[in-house]
Amino acid sequence: MSKSNIQLVDECDRFPYPDDNPASYKAHLENYWEFKVNGCNAVLGHMLDAVVLRFNFPANDWFVDYKNRTLTMLTSPTATPAQRSAVIAKALELAVQQDTFSVLRGWRNELYPVYGPGGEFLLEMERAASPLFGIVSYGVHATAYTKDANGELRIWVPRRSQTKQTWPGMLDNSVAGGMSTGEMPFECLVREAMEEASLPEAIVRANAVPVGCVSYVYVRDSAAGGETDLVQPEVEYVFDIPLDAETIPKPCDSEVQEFNLFSIDECKAALANGEFKPNCSVVLLDFFIRHGILTAENEPDYSTILARVHRRLEFPTRHLCDVAACL
Amino acid sequence: MSKSNIQLVDECDRFPYPDDNPASYKAHLENYWEFKVNGCNAVLGHMLDAVVLRFNFPANDWFVDYKNRTLTMLTSPTATPAQRSAVIAKALELAVQQDTFSVLRGWRNELYPVYGPGGEFLLEMERAASPLFGIVSYGVHATAYTKDANGELRIWVPRRSQTKQTWPGMLDNSVAGGMSTGEMPFECLVREAMEEASLPEAIVRANAVPVGCVSYVYVRDSAAGGETDLVQPEVEYVFDIPLDAETIPKPCDSEVQEFNLFSIDECKAALANGEFKPNCSVVLLDFFIRHGILTAENEPDYSTILARVHRRLEFPTRHLCDVAACL
Repeated sequence: MSKSNIQLVDECDRFPYPDDNPASYKAHLENYWEFKVNGCNAVLGHMLDAVVLRFNFPANDWFVDYKNRTLTMLTSPTATPAQRSAVIAKALELAVQQDTFSVLRGWRNELYPVYGPGGEFLLEMERAASPLFGIVSYGVHATAYTKDANGELRIWVPRRSQTKQTWPGMLDNSVAGGMSTGEMPFECLVREAMEEASLPEAIVRANAVPVGCVSYVYVRDSAAGGETDLVQPEVEYVFDIPLDAETIPKPCDSEVQEFNLFSIDECKAALANGEFKPNCSVVLLDFFIRHGILTAENEPDYSTILARVHRRLEFPTRHLCDVAACL
Repeated sequence: MSKSNIQLVDECDRFPYPDDNPASYKAHLENYWEFKVNGCNAVLGHMLDAVVLRFNFPANDWFVDYKNRTLTMLTSPTATPAQRSAVIAKALELAVQQDTFSVLRGWRNELYPVYGPGGEFLLEMERAASPLFGIVSYGVHATAYTKDANGELRIWVPRRSQTKQTWPGMLDNSVAGGMSTGEMPFECLVREAMEEASLPEAIVRANAVPVGCVSYVYVRDSAAGGETDLVQPEVEYVFDIPLDAETIPKPCDSEVQEFNLFSIDECKAALANGEFKPNCSVVLLDFFIRHGILTAENEPDYSTILARVHRRLEFPTRHLCDVAACL
């Protein structure tokens, strides 16, 4: 059955909203624990109950509060990010040795930052572990496009490799990737554009335009690989990359199988057919709205889609200031 | 003191969020009543306590529930929009006769629609009364711009007439106006562009691009004119209008005093100086983000600004389908 655009948003922004049904939201939260660090009052992520119970947390380092369903890292309130990160790394090392979590088999050797409510850099952890703790992660997504001989927009759409652990074989945005600690969005884009699409740095620097970000709270299902029901709040910085007809993205690493130049109608058909990875759908819908392809006249859920894909996260998020501080 | 961009957002999106501080949010809500119509479970707006108490509601038509702070229109669950609208009109006629509310002195003779949770058209009411009931209102905002000889963007910025009831003398978006019942955003833009900026229909139809919408919950202060603390949730459909150097917007009616062509730096200075009407600031910030002027590298609150100006409203909002149904 063909999917509507709001259904595509529902498949990406999956965690319920408190004000829709406060009682059912409260009941839903009973499946999750709060992840905190000592000295910081903010909740940093929602951890699935089953994850906390299976983790083998060293009691000296962590307070596992079953009554309030809160997991607190017991570092000093004045601990450094390096000290907190070491405590996380120790817990993860044990979990990998014991093969506790399927998601950790996809170890990436990339460190993702976690921020406090004042924007301060609190700690970093292995990327593959971030959905276990439910922390906000950051990335870049870009739409590379060109105009055909008739002036019609065409979009470069890659297909993910069949051997990728996450969403194998699905369609993706032209360039997309995660931002590690200390990385800035534009520099991350430049790096990923070469790694994933063989786009030369000079072309990306000259053509890419930052056009916003999308934010949502994904909840992992089987297509994501590994444990399901893990909470994954994300902020993805969005770029447009207009290209001339001579610039052709090509796979560079093993993550992408092929690039195809889709017409807008081909993109719409693939979206309705569920062929895009969920968060790539919402980046494409945002592109369609910014370029006047989806309008208030042809999309019934126009304002709702825009609000949902710019979700205000309940967790502290990255600020420019703390990025500078953590470099 | 110079205002930051997030402060400008705070001045437009002013109603608190439930998840920031549930206790203080609950206390805040005690100043407001829920506006409902019989047969529809949704809350349609937050009405200020003092407004409900001063209204002289005919008891046959309304249930004023002091215990639950709920005002319910007692029309039949199967009433037509015309029947519900007549009940509102009767209450407003009395209020105007008795000069109960200062905001009603600015009677506009424009009818604003109210939608139910399934997107159905429920009723319409005089525009000036909408903040009394706290209903969602809809409008269009457009940024007309051109490039100077050096290729730099310049934006057409009007100054509101000193005699306007609301925000006299403040800076505004190039074209802006409210959407009445049955009006579609693009047609509303075409009408307003002529009425407010003397932009010919053919030029607007050829150049204007729909690029999204902003949504927020404004709370009126003294600069808005009339009663303060009234809640005004809004969805504003946003358009870009690139113009050639020869097309010059000019005041047409008495609402606009003059147009000036601002550089981006002049816009930024006027924003920081608090010279723009609050909701015009957020439309301009959205423009700056979509055009790569504000970036994650130069704006500390980048993702927060985007989330706040695309607020998910807790009230039912307009869908395309119901607009067609009410025409």
